[in-house]
Amino acid sequence: MEAQCEYCQVFGGYGQLIWQTIHWNIYLAPSQRYLGTCVVALKRHCQDLSQVNHDEWIDFSRVVRKLELALERAFKPTLYNWSCFKNSAFRSENPEPEVHWHFIPRYKDPVTFNELIFHDPDFGYIPLPEKREIPPEIMEKLSNIIKDHME
Amino acid sequence: MEAQCEYCQVFGGYGQLIWQTIHWNIYLAPSQRYLGTCVVALKRHCQDLSQVNHDEWIDFSRVVRKLELALERAFKPTLYNWSCFKNSAFRSENPEPEVHWHFIPRYKDPVTFNELIFHDPDFGYIPLPEKREIPPEIMEKLSNIIKDHME
Repeated sequence: MEAQCEYCQVFGGYGQLIWQTIHWNIYLAPSQRYLGTCVVALKRHCQDLSQVNHDEWIDFSRVVRKLELALERAFKPTLYNWSCFKNSAFRSENPEPEVHWHFIPRYKDPVTFNELIFHDPDFGYIPLPEKREIPPEIMEKLSNIIKDHME
Repeated sequence: MEAQCEYCQVFGGYGQLIWQTIHWNIYLAPSQRYLGTCVVALKRHCQDLSQVNHDEWIDFSRVVRKLELALERAFKPTLYNWSCFKNSAFRSENPEPEVHWHFIPRYKDPVTFNELIFHDPDFGYIPLPEKREIPPEIMEKLSNIIKDHME
């Protein structure tokens, strides 16, 4: 799974694996400009959404419910943005796009988590691929809280 | 279906209806900054993707295949961006978000359609919600060519 995420901006992966289903891996995205941002990546290589099969779609719909519910319980976001873009793969000479989704919770009001304040500076508008890193120990806690709420 | 599309920027609708399935309506988006941009809207009111049911997801997966194939036949885009954002609904006091997808074909090289040239000025990067209107008669032809290739 070698890829650079448009929103995550990390080579060689999508972040920290926090959950998996039969067909999808769920990662906590390295950039937390929007608290709780995750990447949901198909386990097999697949270039376009039209190649995703019946079982993978059904499994994906369960991931959507599980993730939205987990975030609802953890941080009560106002809404959720989902996108499957794959643009950044095409900046290279030999693009190898892979189906993966950006799951981006959006917040009308700021949220505080472990004494860090998360504003959503673009609320009401498209999410920007600008990086916000947070300390590793807070990433770890964030990963655990999402995982706990998925169970 | 009263809504203002983030990418379409039109009040009161998503553009011109070109196709429908049991659960989804497919519109040609009023803004054609990226040739062949469409909106796929759920027919019933639904705020979050987690409320989309089994049959609607399966039907949606068929729409994905049909649309990507139709565009492939018509204009051979390099890739396709899909997103379900609903951000603009939250700019109003009483937001009424509705599940709808932005289908945005992306092009490495310019495409000419009816003597109009379509560059993709943001290729390799996220699609921008900037409006490009084209003459009504070309919209009509574009709508027909996509429709023809979906049959």
